[in-house]
Amino acid sequence: MKVDGKAMRSIWVEPDGWSVGIIDQTALPHRFVTARLTTLEGAAHAIRAMLVRGAPLIGAAAAYGICLAVRADTSDDALDRAYATLIATRPTAINLKWALDEMMAAVRNRPRAERAAAAYRRAAEICDQDVAINTAIGRNGLSLIEAVAARKKAGERVNVLTHCNAGWLATVDVGTATAPIYLAHDNGIAIHVFADETRPRNQGASLTAWELGQHGVPHTIIADNAGGHLMQHGLVDLIIVGTDRVTANGDVCNKIGTYLKALAAHDNKVPFYVALPSPTLDFAIADGLAEIPIEERSADEVANISGLTADGRIETVRVVPEHSAVSNYGFDVTPARLVTGLITERGIIAASRAALAKAFPERAG
Amino acid sequence: MKVDGKAMRSIWVEPDGWSVGIIDQTALPHRFVTARLTTLEGAAHAIRAMLVRGAPLIGAAAAYGICLAVRADTSDDALDRAYATLIATRPTAINLKWALDEMMAAVRNRPRAERAAAAYRRAAEICDQDVAINTAIGRNGLSLIEAVAARKKAGERVNVLTHCNAGWLATVDVGTATAPIYLAHDNGIAIHVFADETRPRNQGASLTAWELGQHGVPHTIIADNAGGHLMQHGLVDLIIVGTDRVTANGDVCNKIGTYLKALAAHDNKVPFYVALPSPTLDFAIADGLAEIPIEERSADEVANISGLTADGRIETVRVVPEHSAVSNYGFDVTPARLVTGLITERGIIAASRAALAKAFPERAG
Repeated sequence: MKVDGKAMRSIWVEPDGWSVGIIDQTALPHRFVTARLTTLEGAAHAIRAMLVRGAPLIGAAAAYGICLAVRADTSDDALDRAYATLIATRPTAINLKWALDEMMAAVRNRPRAERAAAAYRRAAEICDQDVAINTAIGRNGLSLIEAVAARKKAGERVNVLTHCNAGWLATVDVGTATAPIYLAHDNGIAIHVFADETRPRNQGASLTAWELGQHGVPHTIIADNAGGHLMQHGLVDLIIVGTDRVTANGDVCNKIGTYLKALAAHDNKVPFYVALPSPTLDFAIADGLAEIPIEERSADEVANISGLTADGRIETVRVVPEHSAVSNYGFDVTPARLVTGLITERGIIAASRAALAKAFPERAG
Repeated sequence: MKVDGKAMRSIWVEPDGWSVGIIDQTALPHRFVTARLTTLEGAAHAIRAMLVRGAPLIGAAAAYGICLAVRADTSDDALDRAYATLIATRPTAINLKWALDEMMAAVRNRPRAERAAAAYRRAAEICDQDVAINTAIGRNGLSLIEAVAARKKAGERVNVLTHCNAGWLATVDVGTATAPIYLAHDNGIAIHVFADETRPRNQGASLTAWELGQHGVPHTIIADNAGGHLMQHGLVDLIIVGTDRVTANGDVCNKIGTYLKALAAHDNKVPFYVALPSPTLDFAIADGLAEIPIEERSADEVANISGLTADGRIETVRVVPEHSAVSNYGFDVTPARLVTGLITERGIIAASRAALAKAFPERAG
């Protein structure tokens, strides 16, 4: 997608042919800063500290983390250490494991001299595949937006609510939840997005709003608390969110707070869709509530907020009393019963074991 | 309740016998600052800019606004202007209208020479009545907490979740939602409170956490997004929130986001109670969703956040991109069907027309 009018991806190999460029997403929306990863440790840090985030991009960054590790040391031991380091960076998104397993399969059974080249080749494929998947999700999801648009009177917009950032910044390009939105906008449909600010890390306010703005998509930032009220008053036509892991049963793990929006959607008969690229599927587990590990992150993410001062400095302020405890769960699970449908690269399907197994038989195993 | 160990109320008449002291709640939790109101305009500003907030305290502050106006000018015209000025400060909390109507009834039919004294007398009664009501709410709500405590094993705490601040800072003293909590804590019950931070103004993080901390009640601040996850995992025993207006049907208007917690409570069979002092009842309307005016406040409240810098300054930072639109609805309505019960000064009753009319026949009319 575009940044200041220039097309770019969220991760790339630098002109030197080996180091890896990323957008430092912790600096957005106030500063556009890129960073250069040159080591396994650098890649692991970028994932852990959320310079890159979003389930698909975490997978892509981990793939390049393997590349950087193998480039430095082609031994089996180094490969195993790289896997162990990267898999430990974030617990919830299954794409991380998926990408690492793909990389191991591509590299492990080769002579050491071929490993680095094979790793870079497979990482590039993972990135290209992500873009292709998201483009297909966009085409498939477009029909939902077109159907709403067809019911609108002249001058009325299609209002889509989204939570967190499942935009191109969360992927290699195009985004998952945003893919149908960008396509609808590009096709001339009047579309408007309510972006939940998504506390505590504000990915909606800082990333989704920023990328929609860069692409010219009308949007409004709202407090996470506001979505229910908007739905009660008919101001939301459709919800589309991304996901960090979908179980074989169709339970959806996504950014903390997603479940609350799904409940409000259900209570107000607003369709609630999840954009699901197949690497985010985890057929190994069934019950999302019982089985998906939910990351607990630092209390500092709730207690402190960074932003831009009136005189243009980035400053961090504390917003809680000095001695109060704080907890910070990163994700929640929306049971399949609350999901209207899953927008996949193979079409829109029900959030059910039968539909998932039918659409992805090679994964269901 | 106590501030640094010293008992105080949230509003008082100063030793001069006429000017009105308040806590400037916009400075909490980082600074404890009081302010002195000397004019109608000062009182109106304090309500509008939320130096004082919370439905009961808004009513009390408006009552003293009438006092200050009458002290300066005892004419009917001045009284009418004061009413008009104060009623326009905030649209959602019905206590404002209730208190102003009480004040007019107490002052209007008196000789001008008696009006100021009558006003101060009635305002003091409104404050004392608020404390008495809240104390009764505490006694009545205590049974709910005791019932949960009786089921707990040794060493387990009763976990109560609350949204926004319906604490003593939202009232003259004691609080509404917090009244049973403080009483349980004072009675030696092991109680712990999850305080929603309550974006965009963070009243949970800045006020509820602060006052619970001052009183020694264990508590944890959470992002508004987290409550659903906590309830799914059995970490919340009970929800108690306050309210800005309850309709004749039992629909509950409260801080934006309350509805989402009520939905999650319903989905997870967590009891959802509303602490309701009778001045917050509005028998004039039935359908909360259709009839309660929802205040829209400045986009700045979402876009900018104030807090304490590492070097001890209060600083405001912007957390959204420069050109993004922002909307800011202050309240939402929780339909009566999602409310387990209303904790009133006359007992715990159902959120229904019949129960409300039976408990408050003189108000139902």
